[in-house]
This record gives sequence, structure tokens and C-alpha cells, in this order.
Amino acid sequence: MDLTDANPVGNQLQTPVQAPRRKTSRAECPVDRDSPVYNMKHRRRGKAYIFNHECFDPSLGLSKRVGSSTDVSNLQIALYGLGFQVFGFNDLGVCDVRKIIQQLANEDHSECDCVMVVLLSHGENGKIYTYDSVYHSDELWFPFTSDKCPSLAGKPKLFFIQACQGSKMDKGTLMQCDSAKERDSVVEEYSIPTLADFMIAYSTVPGYASWRNTENGSWFIQSLCHIFKEYGKYEDLLSMMTMVLLKVATLGKGYAQIPCVTSQLIRRVYFYSKMNV
Amino acid sequence: MDLTDANPVGNQLQTPVQAPRRKTSRAECPVDRDSPVYNMKHRRRGKAYIFNHECFDPSLGLSKRVGSSTDVSNLQIALYGLGFQVFGFNDLGVCDVRKIIQQLANEDHSECDCVMVVLLSHGENGKIYTYDSVYHSDELWFPFTSDKCPSLAGKPKLFFIQACQGSKMDKGTLMQCDSAKERDSVVEEYSIPTLADFMIAYSTVPGYASWRNTENGSWFIQSLCHIFKEYGKYEDLLSMMTMVLLKVATLGKGYAQIPCVTSQLIRRVYFYSKMNV
Repeated sequence: MDLTDANPVGNQLQTPVQAPRRKTSRAECPVDRDSPVYNMKHRRRGKAYIFNHECFDPSLGLSKRVGSSTDVSNLQIALYGLGFQVFGFNDLGVCDVRKIIQQLANEDHSECDCVMVVLLSHGENGKIYTYDSVYHSDELWFPFTSDKCPSLAGKPKLFFIQACQGSKMDKGTLMQCDSAKERDSVVEEYSIPTLADFMIAYSTVPGYASWRNTENGSWFIQSLCHIFKEYGKYEDLLSMMTMVLLKVATLGKGYAQIPCVTSQLIRRVYFYSKMNV
Repeated sequence: MDLTDANPVGNQLQTPVQAPRRKTSRAECPVDRDSPVYNMKHRRRGKAYIFNHECFDPSLGLSKRVGSSTDVSNLQIALYGLGFQVFGFNDLGVCDVRKIIQQLANEDHSECDCVMVVLLSHGENGKIYTYDSVYHSDELWFPFTSDKCPSLAGKPKLFFIQACQGSKMDKGTLMQCDSAKERDSVVEEYSIPTLADFMIAYSTVPGYASWRNTENGSWFIQSLCHIFKEYGKYEDLLSMMTMVLLKVATLGKGYAQIPCVTSQLIRRVYFYSKMNV
């Protein structure tokens, strides 16, 4: 008998549940149920949207994010190199960000492997600043759940957020070293959770500040682009993210920063060259 | 110049910072700075604590978590197989949980590769029930940051939480398939963020319920133990977690569940057999 581990309210649900299948959303399946890797062999890699916020309405009292355009240039090269169709948006207001995200979610992604959204701005505990206002980072990815965006169901939905999550600073701990497949299958159907296939990478952990160099761009995006350029075509995404974390974690002098990767990916993501597929 | 991407309050900090090194914590470094893998060649793998909550004080109005002892048995076998020294604690009150966690953090882990804590209980949005009360899941890992627990600095700190994070249920999306397809180094020192090297795996995403079979145990722990037994000695931890997510995501009939892995690991974790090192 399957029960839930819910709170007292949830306990009302602790009778065996046989849910009617008719209420489940339906989507075309881009990959065999048990495949350990996502299908990255669609006609196109997919779109990557970069929301760059460098200037802000003076009423918000936020400083100009000098160096952010370097992040954008680096991202454009690195993501183009991975086969993405890259689009940049500068200093948009909150209504425009919401509209563009919704439009992206409404598009038909049937011929794409995945989707990517990168956000560069000031932030504070899960909130992200736009030119004129603020919104919660959850709003970026909610429109892409498999029930709302069926043409991306079963495909990786990748989010990178370069923003502070607070103003705490990590002095770090000083370390002293002495030594230091895919297969063909018959027609089948299976259900996957609507919240599967997401990866959300934050430049820093909740409560902490995120560093940006005025010439070379933010530590996180610099490291991300470096690793994507170096290993993007043959290492899997989560392994690359571990490399990014090592790079960011060991970059600071005096202050330290650790990004945080939240994965609901159920398979490995490889950005193999589109030339070979 | 390095600045932070903080909120207006954080902006006060936007002057170049040259932090005094003397305020940084110090710890012995178990691994070379640029190593892509954690050092898992200490004398011992480390301790794994399992907090099993099956029965609750009647005043809390929580049902007995039938099947949880199956999770404990499976975990004991799987974690022992990975070389952990496994300790189980049943139906403790909140004071005892806090005390035992603090005692574990106070221990000398110098000869250990890592530490693991597994929590099996009812839960609700980041909160976990004990026999008599409730605490926030953050309390489990806060005592282990590298400044507070220097003998675990630079080593993986692994947390697995089997509990609901709410009572929402995911009907899933039905997918229709037509086809598918260490090296030695000289003496050096470096700083790492105090919050690096953590991995926290939640059985479900915030807001959602987590399923448990009364005979076979929870979907998450069942899948975790299966993958650890099958691949534990040669696949890296994050890759195994992706496999666990695939297993859980495709397990449900009618209802779906997706676990959520939050990684601040800066290197790969391999549980190679202690016999070979």
C-alpha cells in the first residue's frame, strides 16, 4: 500500500490512492523510459535566453552591475558553442520579463533538445531585480513544467541564476595541504512527474552574496563559460557543474563563494556536437 | 574589482574588499586544491546516522509510518556495503536528535572520508517531525559547516531526507513513446567556502508529498538502496542520484514523485571499495 509522508493535513490522504489516469497530462515522449541519458538528437539544441540586468531605475537605489556585459559576451560564445540559439535581453522591466518567459513556454519546442534561461542581476533571498521591480526566481521556471509546456516534457529545462541571495559573506576555511545508451523500443507509455527534468543553478547559496569582477564578469558565469568551452561537448552537465563549483569555490582571495545546484534531472545531459548526430 | 550582486543593503558592501585572512577558519586539507575527486582513501569511510521516525506522540495526530523499518534494513545493508559505520536511532524526541547531531559534529573525523545523515519521517515544507515535536531540516546540516566542524572540512557531507515537503500531489505527465533512442602535491594552502562539500537529497520537491509503500518502504529510499547496491562501488554519487531520480520518477502508477538533489559538492564522490585503497 502506498501512503504519503505528509503532515497531519496530509494524513487525510493516507488511504490507498488509485488515481484516475484521465486527469494526467499527456505529452509526446522524446526518450525511452529507462534511458540513462536525455535525447539530445533533435533537429535543434534549443533556445537559450539571457536576461541581463545592468542598469536599474534610480528609485530602486541599486548600483550599475559593471562587468555584466562581459558575462553576456562569454555566455553568447559558450552557449553558441554548445549549439544553442542564443537571445539576449537587456535591462527589461518585470512585465516584459514575465511576458517573454511566458512566450518562450508557449512556443513549440518539439524539434528542440532542451531549453535554457540565464539570469544576471541583483538579487536577495530568491528574489531577482529587474529594471523597475522585483520577482521571485520560481516565476522563471514555473511556466515550463511538463503539464504547462508539453513540447518540453521529458526534456532538460536548465536555469542559471547569477544574483545574490542575501548579503552574508563567506570568509571560507583555509585548507592546508601536505599532499594532496540509448536503444530502440516498442510503443509504450509512462508517466513522469511534472516537476522532473529541471536543473536550477544558483551562483550562491541562500542568504549569501555573489561576486562579480568589473572586468572579467561574475565568478560564477566566468567559471561556467570556461567549463562549457573546455568540456561542453563530452562531459555530462552535472559533472560539469561540479567542476564549475570547484572553480568558483577556489577562486576567491579573502572571501569565498559556493554556488548551489538543484537538480531534478532524471537522466544525464550531454551537449554532443550537432555535427555528429 | 570584485563586487557583490547584493540587494540595496548589500550595496553598502560594493567597495573593493581585501578581507583579512586572519578571520578565516583553518583546517587540514584532505585533498589537493584542483583534484576533480574527493579523497576517499582515509582509514575509514565514515559514520552514517539513520534517524528513523515510525511512531509519534498521539498529540501530534500523525499516523504510524508503516514500512519505515524496511527502509532502515535496506539502508543498513546498502550503506554498510559502501563501507560506512551505520548507526540507527528510532523515534527520538527533538532534543535527542539535536544532541546526537551536535555530538556527531563535535567528533574528530580526521580519519574518515565523509559523513552521512539519513532522516526518515513525516514532514512539511522543510520541517521534519520527531516523536514529540518538529525542527527545520537546516538544523541537520548547519553544525557540519567547515568552520564549525574542521575535521570534515573539504570532505563530503551527505544528507538524505525522506519526508513530505507538503501535501500537493503530482499527477504527472503521461509520456507516449513511438521510438526512443589524485595526485601528490607540494605544501600549499587555499580557502574553500564554509558551505562547500554538502549534498542534500530530498525525497520530493518543496510543497509535494512523498510516497511510502507499507511493505517495501518509501519510493525514494528503496530506489536509493537499489542504486547504491548496484552501482555504489564504481559510479560517482551525483550520477547515482540521477539514476535514483529516474527510478523514483518512473515508479508511480497514477501519482508521480520527483526527488530534488541540492549539491554544493566541488568534486566527484566515489565510494570505491576500502579493500583496494
